[in-house]
Amino acid sequence: MVETRNPLNIGAAARAMANFGFSRLRAVNPYDVAFREARSAVGAAPLLQTAECCSSVAEAVSDCRLVVGTTSLGHRELHHSLRRLEYGARLILQAAAEAPVAILFGSEKFGLSNDDLSHCHWLMRIPTVGADLSMNLGQAVALCLYELSRDPDAAAVTPDKIRSADAGSIEQITRMLMETLQLSGYVNPVTAASTEEKARRLLRRLNIGYRDAPVIMGMLRQILWKLRGSGD
Amino acid sequence: MVETRNPLNIGAAARAMANFGFSRLRAVNPYDVAFREARSAVGAAPLLQTAECCSSVAEAVSDCRLVVGTTSLGHRELHHSLRRLEYGARLILQAAAEAPVAILFGSEKFGLSNDDLSHCHWLMRIPTVGADLSMNLGQAVALCLYELSRDPDAAAVTPDKIRSADAGSIEQITRMLMETLQLSGYVNPVTAASTEEKARRLLRRLNIGYRDAPVIMGMLRQILWKLRGSGD
Repeated sequence: MVETRNPLNIGAAARAMANFGFSRLRAVNPYDVAFREARSAVGAAPLLQTAECCSSVAEAVSDCRLVVGTTSLGHRELHHSLRRLEYGARLILQAAAEAPVAILFGSEKFGLSNDDLSHCHWLMRIPTVGADLSMNLGQAVALCLYELSRDPDAAAVTPDKIRSADAGSIEQITRMLMETLQLSGYVNPVTAASTEEKARRLLRRLNIGYRDAPVIMGMLRQILWKLRGSGD
Repeated sequence: MVETRNPLNIGAAARAMANFGFSRLRAVNPYDVAFREARSAVGAAPLLQTAECCSSVAEAVSDCRLVVGTTSLGHRELHHSLRRLEYGARLILQAAAEAPVAILFGSEKFGLSNDDLSHCHWLMRIPTVGADLSMNLGQAVALCLYELSRDPDAAAVTPDKIRSADAGSIEQITRMLMETLQLSGYVNPVTAASTEEKARRLLRRLNIGYRDAPVIMGMLRQILWKLRGSGD
């Protein structure tokens, strides 16, 4: 993080790093030396304790073999190739398997300077709508780290469906509901068969879960108990 | 956003919504009614002007056909199916093509209550490391909106490579470099042929871009001019 002005943003970045399992934070000339106590870093205090303060970008990236700058689109003429976060993250992961990679974030107000950018191999941008509104710094850090730790396969995996109740339970519910409807006077004797069919289809469309079936039976049992009692 | 305590987080959420092209923000019982002036919402002021205040979750989601709650993993016993953000976002996009979808975010301290959760069809979690550290609310909102507007194809697309200089330019640079090395006394006449081969291979490994070639030639031209002048 280069010349960050707001300690809250360093804190937010540290918290996002903890959230996604990253641990090496370097601050180049932070505006406020009290950044180690940044308040918003809930649970990230250990990380801020070990954050390193550097006096230049060159010093901060000296042990890295790939340096990627982050930028808002279109805020200046770019002399680097610019990659979308989705793709840039893939390249970073490949490079990080072999050697340390630095991701640079500029100040809230001005972003990275041309001098900062000259240390970068290429630039990465978050695909936001419209170039006039930059992202909040803490959010931008979180998005980059999320994309790096995102599991592409997780988007395609179908999770376990909620297990449906078995047909026997549904039929039991159907019988209890029908008795309830009869006792309450809902069923017209002439159309009773048709009403039962409708109720049966309706209950099957509901796709009742196996854990909900006993709850519904309990409700119906109580209603039936009351309806029978009232009839005495 | 349900019972958000910190107006800065509403502002951060509004800014992320503007960044990713979302526009309908509903705040359920926000802690501070001054949330419309939330400071961190750079450029999101129009959005906060139209944000709606609701007195209950039921009111806030009444026109939605899918309601998804967000949660940290494992903070309570869950009675809903829980989906990772990568997969949940796909389901939300499918549903949003047909009808409005609500994504609920709870308060900074307590998240969504069991009562709030009872309005949800299912829950979504951001795949962070470790369950003990929740995410910052503004960052969590940004991540969900990013995943919803993320382009899966962009991860696979290979961007245009930097165009390499043509072989003629590289050969011209090679000749200029060789003359420079000769004039400066680097080349041993006995091993001159071998040195030239090494230089030629080195220059090709550098993969010089077509826009950098004239710059390098300009540098070498000036060095040669100086070296020749010194020889007079």
